[in-house]
Amino acid sequence: MSFKIAVAGCTGYAGGELLRLLLQHPEVEIGALTGNSSAGGRLGALQPHLAPLADRVIAPTTAEELAGHDVVFLALPHGTSASIAEQLGDDVLIVDAGADFRLNSAEDWKRFYGTDHAGTWPYGLPELPGARRQLAGAKRVAVPGCYPTACTLALLPAVAAGLIDTTQIVIVAASGTSGAGKAAKPHLLGSEVMGNMSPYGVGGGHRHTPEIVQNLSGVTGSEVVVSFTPLLAPMPRGILATCSAPILGEVSQADARASYADFYADEPFVSLLEEGSWPQTAAVVGSNRATVQVTVDQAAGRLIAISAIDNLTKGTAGGAIQSMNIALGLDETSGLSTVGVAP
Amino acid sequence: MSFKIAVAGCTGYAGGELLRLLLQHPEVEIGALTGNSSAGGRLGALQPHLAPLADRVIAPTTAEELAGHDVVFLALPHGTSASIAEQLGDDVLIVDAGADFRLNSAEDWKRFYGTDHAGTWPYGLPELPGARRQLAGAKRVAVPGCYPTACTLALLPAVAAGLIDTTQIVIVAASGTSGAGKAAKPHLLGSEVMGNMSPYGVGGGHRHTPEIVQNLSGVTGSEVVVSFTPLLAPMPRGILATCSAPILGEVSQADARASYADFYADEPFVSLLEEGSWPQTAAVVGSNRATVQVTVDQAAGRLIAISAIDNLTKGTAGGAIQSMNIALGLDETSGLSTVGVAP
Amino acid sequence: MSFKIAVAGCTGYAGGELLRLLLQHPEVEIGALTGNSSAGGRLGALQPHLAPLADRVIAPTTAEELAGHDVVFLALPHGTSASIAEQLGDDVLIVDAGADFRLNSAEDWKRFYGTDHAGTWPYGLPELPGARRQLAGAKRVAVPGCYPTACTLALLPAVAAGLIDTTQIVIVAASGTSGAGKAAKPHLLGSEVMGNMSPYGVGGGHRHTPEIVQNLSGVTGSEVVVSFTPLLAPMPRGILATCSAPILGEVSQADARASYADFYADEPFVSLLEEGSWPQTAAVVGSNRATVQVTVDQAAGRLIAISAIDNLTKGTAGGAIQSMNIALGLDETSGLSTVGVAP
Amino acid sequence: MSFKIAVAGCTGYAGGELLRLLLQHPEVEIGALTGNSSAGGRLGALQPHLAPLADRVIAPTTAEELAGHDVVFLALPHGTSASIAEQLGDDVLIVDAGADFRLNSAEDWKRFYGTDHAGTWPYGLPELPGARRQLAGAKRVAVPGCYPTACTLALLPAVAAGLIDTTQIVIVAASGTSGAGKAAKPHLLGSEVMGNMSPYGVGGGHRHTPEIVQNLSGVTGSEVVVSFTPLLAPMPRGILATCSAPILGEVSQADARASYADFYADEPFVSLLEEGSWPQTAAVVGSNRATVQVTVDQAAGRLIAISAIDNLTKGTAGGAIQSMNIALGLDETSGLSTVGVAP
Repeated sequence: MSFKIAVAGCTGYAGGELLRLLLQHPEVEIGALTGNSSAGGRLGALQPHLAPLADRVIAPTTAEELAGHDVVFLALPHGTSASIAEQLGDDVLIVDAGADFRLNSAEDWKRFYGTDHAGTWPYGLPELPGARRQLAGAKRVAVPGCYPTACTLALLPAVAAGLIDTTQIVIVAASGTSGAGKAAKPHLLGSEVMGNMSPYGVGGGHRHTPEIVQNLSGVTGSEVVVSFTPLLAPMPRGILATCSAPILGEVSQADARASYADFYADEPFVSLLEEGSWPQTAAVVGSNRATVQVTVDQAAGRLIAISAIDNLTKGTAGGAIQSMNIALGLDETSGLSTVGVAP
Repeated sequence: MSFKIAVAGCTGYAGGELLRLLLQHPEVEIGALTGNSSAGGRLGALQPHLAPLADRVIAPTTAEELAGHDVVFLALPHGTSASIAEQLGDDVLIVDAGADFRLNSAEDWKRFYGTDHAGTWPYGLPELPGARRQLAGAKRVAVPGCYPTACTLALLPAVAAGLIDTTQIVIVAASGTSGAGKAAKPHLLGSEVMGNMSPYGVGGGHRHTPEIVQNLSGVTGSEVVVSFTPLLAPMPRGILATCSAPILGEVSQADARASYADFYADEPFVSLLEEGSWPQTAAVVGSNRATVQVTVDQAAGRLIAISAIDNLTKGTAGGAIQSMNIALGLDETSGLSTVGVAP
Repeated sequence: MSFKIAVAGCTGYAGGELLRLLLQHPEVEIGALTGNSSAGGRLGALQPHLAPLADRVIAPTTAEELAGHDVVFLALPHGTSASIAEQLGDDVLIVDAGADFRLNSAEDWKRFYGTDHAGTWPYGLPELPGARRQLAGAKRVAVPGCYPTACTLALLPAVAAGLIDTTQIVIVAASGTSGAGKAAKPHLLGSEVMGNMSPYGVGGGHRHTPEIVQNLSGVTGSEVVVSFTPLLAPMPRGILATCSAPILGEVSQADARASYADFYADEPFVSLLEEGSWPQTAAVVGSNRATVQVTVDQAAGRLIAISAIDNLTKGTAGGAIQSMNIALGLDETSGLSTVGVAP
Repeated sequence: MSFKIAVAGCTGYAGGELLRLLLQHPEVEIGALTGNSSAGGRLGALQPHLAPLADRVIAPTTAEELAGHDVVFLALPHGTSASIAEQLGDDVLIVDAGADFRLNSAEDWKRFYGTDHAGTWPYGLPELPGARRQLAGAKRVAVPGCYPTACTLALLPAVAAGLIDTTQIVIVAASGTSGAGKAAKPHLLGSEVMGNMSPYGVGGGHRHTPEIVQNLSGVTGSEVVVSFTPLLAPMPRGILATCSAPILGEVSQADARASYADFYADEPFVSLLEEGSWPQTAAVVGSNRATVQVTVDQAAGRLIAISAIDNLTKGTAGGAIQSMNIALGLDETSGLSTVGVAP
């Protein structure tokens, strides 16, 4: 049995990564590929790495083109998913790689995105307690943001186990440039980003902040407050999230590791590394794997948890397919790999 | 049916890439993994991207450890394959990713490698005329060098069709740093290679020169002379080979393209790009695909052919598995992909 | 005595490099800085590395703003220099970093740039025989292209000494991305260029081809034919030019080196490296130095000459200031350095 | 008047950067250059960017070779400075770029470096209150670590003004690879670091932690506790330090900026950026400038301060020369620049 898949927004980085992964998925067939300004062109001109699809012609992103598929992935600009989704009806599985349906709070949405809240869909981070139940059989999935995926996976066990003061969480997360998308902006030119580390959205303004808070709040009764600083790093892919918070009372290194080991014992795509090994982005590039490590700095009284993911794979397209697999009742790992492309 | 595979030299870049690809090959089972100084350690400490093999213990590279497999890949320093091969006997398929058995000429071997010639094995570049016949059922395969793979694929159709003066071939080929291996040398430090383009082996001294000449000589009766300059480029993977030679008589752009289109019409891993598109390394990283383009500079009287490959995949480990597939009678493309990991 | 300098086009890479160098020039004072869309803004927002000029306000590029200076540097798009130059009059020294006045041949200009030829100004490559005489006291200077600077310096001694067949010159030159300018184009995004080598302008179409031919023709009576292939390399700055041609008769390694050593014996900014050392871009970044090395591949019958420069310094802004120094009667090396910024 | 300078350890990155800067210093003359394994060789072979010193022969690092200079810079492995210093006598100015004499606390030294404390020299961070008085006329200077320079400059005004809870400081600082030195180690290979972000010394173990605490403690009576996580970034140079701490009571954005503006009003090498601009490493590469920005995240209740420096310039060699200038009674900015080399 093969599911027919459409990808709306096939020319960007998220769309390209979805197609890269779908091409190796044994239970899907790739149908319509749509774009906007690129409609009418060959995919090969815009995604030269997708050899088997090189001669596919890009269709316009309309309900007609997207109709007749079992699954439609939306890799569209924020604010455009709702109208497409309505037109496609309730029987098709729609997986939105955009932000539109991630947040529960209409107020947070309004504050961080500036428009009216479109609603909330089942949130596609299977590692969250209860998430798989919500995703099974779902017809709508909101794919998490890339930073929220990395940061949530780094902190979830510590928050769930009550090891840390959740009102004093500090995250500094470095991302590869593909996280900023394919739109040509001067500060994203190769000449500007190579050899350069730069922060952005400093001081709480980044849109992924409320999403991280929402995820962590789901496993604790305590208030969650996060200071989040994203950094642009000189590499195409990868997120390294360095997270910390004060420990509550006595927390030993062994306690911390035990909590993480338990929490992720059965997760196919999250690896707690051997003690002494730390996550690095290069080891997970191209894979759907998140690596995590935790330690306690007793002198500073803080637990430090670090995770690495590929922002385009586990952080976007791989996570989307993982959720699709659950929604369709397939093996959750189908078409996904824990093997990175290194060096 | 599943073939049992051993990899000798599993801790280097070639060994790591072999394992990355073998992990996704449907008809193999990964057996012994051997190394030298690393024997006794966990593979996860040295190849952190190979998650499913993280807990495998590295065995010493001995005939005992390598015995009992259907296929043994050798990813060893030059000059060490012959003695291992002898000990393993004639029934096992040995695929040597090193240089020892590539050259036909004992004299060339002596001149470029400085030791005695160990012999010649079937040469694992299936795109060479007659190569698949030689490889089918073979028990020994010499994997081509990475530069010879890229350069041969760029020039083969032009030489075979008699379009160019083969005594005036000029190649400048840029390689990612993984081509230089994993041994820690000062000039390969990240601080040295980032932001840096540098030539090496200038003036005809690079060991891949006679191998390129040998490959091209196989499709022409004319003398082949190659000026080959390799460049180290600030990227981990990829080779871009820029090749040219004077045209013989009148050669139109259409003639050149027709020769290339014919020559590669049935090749699963070589793509002649659309006119106007040029190979770039990023589009083939992680894939077994070679992209090729050709044009004629009428003002300069030269044909220019450019190819891009991933030096570790098509240039080493992917090419090795492609030849293994042929030798074992499997589908030649089994376990291999034409889809790159980009950006 | 201090010369008052204006820079038209201060927000691009060439303009920024001019200002970086002028800030350390002991005999100049920086006057008007002009731009187009950026006029009215602070320079600090667009050139954050130029701390001492951070609060300068960018003026519009008009004859009024540029009037009243001793020297005006033009770092403008091709085709826009002539009209500005006319308005500024004959008494001011105008140094054009654009292409408008480089070519002698109106026909070449038309063919490669597509517009009418604006004329020819003294060509600012002091290392060309006779160039310093032309530049001394000149009121107009055409700054060479970055590739022509690198390629000419690599080949000039060999051509002048009659060592090579000038009708069979092959050049493959890799450039950092700043050579493509600061305009935001998708293929220049960091995500696209990092980890990527790609050719462009293949087959003789690059506009720097006739300029290279023109420069080399100046030192030989023979016809000069050049096959030129530029490559985009994953680094912000630097050009590595790999050049070769068939030797004429017997040419020993010693002959070749002697010709180069003689030719560049008194040049302050061109270094013939020690035998065995090869140019690399990282060693010249930020400096006005060109490094050159030459060898003879007797087996291939070719002389190979390689040069490295910083495309923005010796290849543009540094070369421009070197010529300004000569035109103004200053020490040619004033304000310029041979010391690179490495690693 | 010209001071005669020797550099012990001239072949590493710190030594190379010292020489790069000293070459443009108007009041020094470069004397002995010493090394260990490289003694007897030409400097040009190891520091190819230092053109004017290419033919200098490297002497062995002995008291004899270093005698007879006005200033001796030590760029040696930790633990080796004391014995050299003793032999050189009290009249020579010794500037130690190593760690040996940085820490006041013998206990901290023992804990983080594992050997006996050699003592404490005047600490060469002129921006610390009182530092210039200590440095003026000093004959011994301990150059700060690169991370302590960046982190101290980011946090100093906030700590001095009592804006933050100094027991809850969190720092995540990303460094270019030159910070790890020139010794060839596998994890520092270009193939490993390109495309990779990785943490190290996580959990309080990095040796720069007590130095940061010591610096900040100098401007407050409160206890200082720092959680410090360093990251290796895929770039040769630069440090971006992201620092934060809970605000004490009400602290507005305006309060924070005012404190920083006041504190750095007269500093020649520290720039508080315009509001809305954030430090980035590329803008300070090659310069002795530190850029700083501060904001208050009211939702998280934290002050965030970020700084960028070039780890080799302001972070090592430039800072060393700045302190030398003060010690010798020269203009503090002599030979140093605030202009970066970008892009």
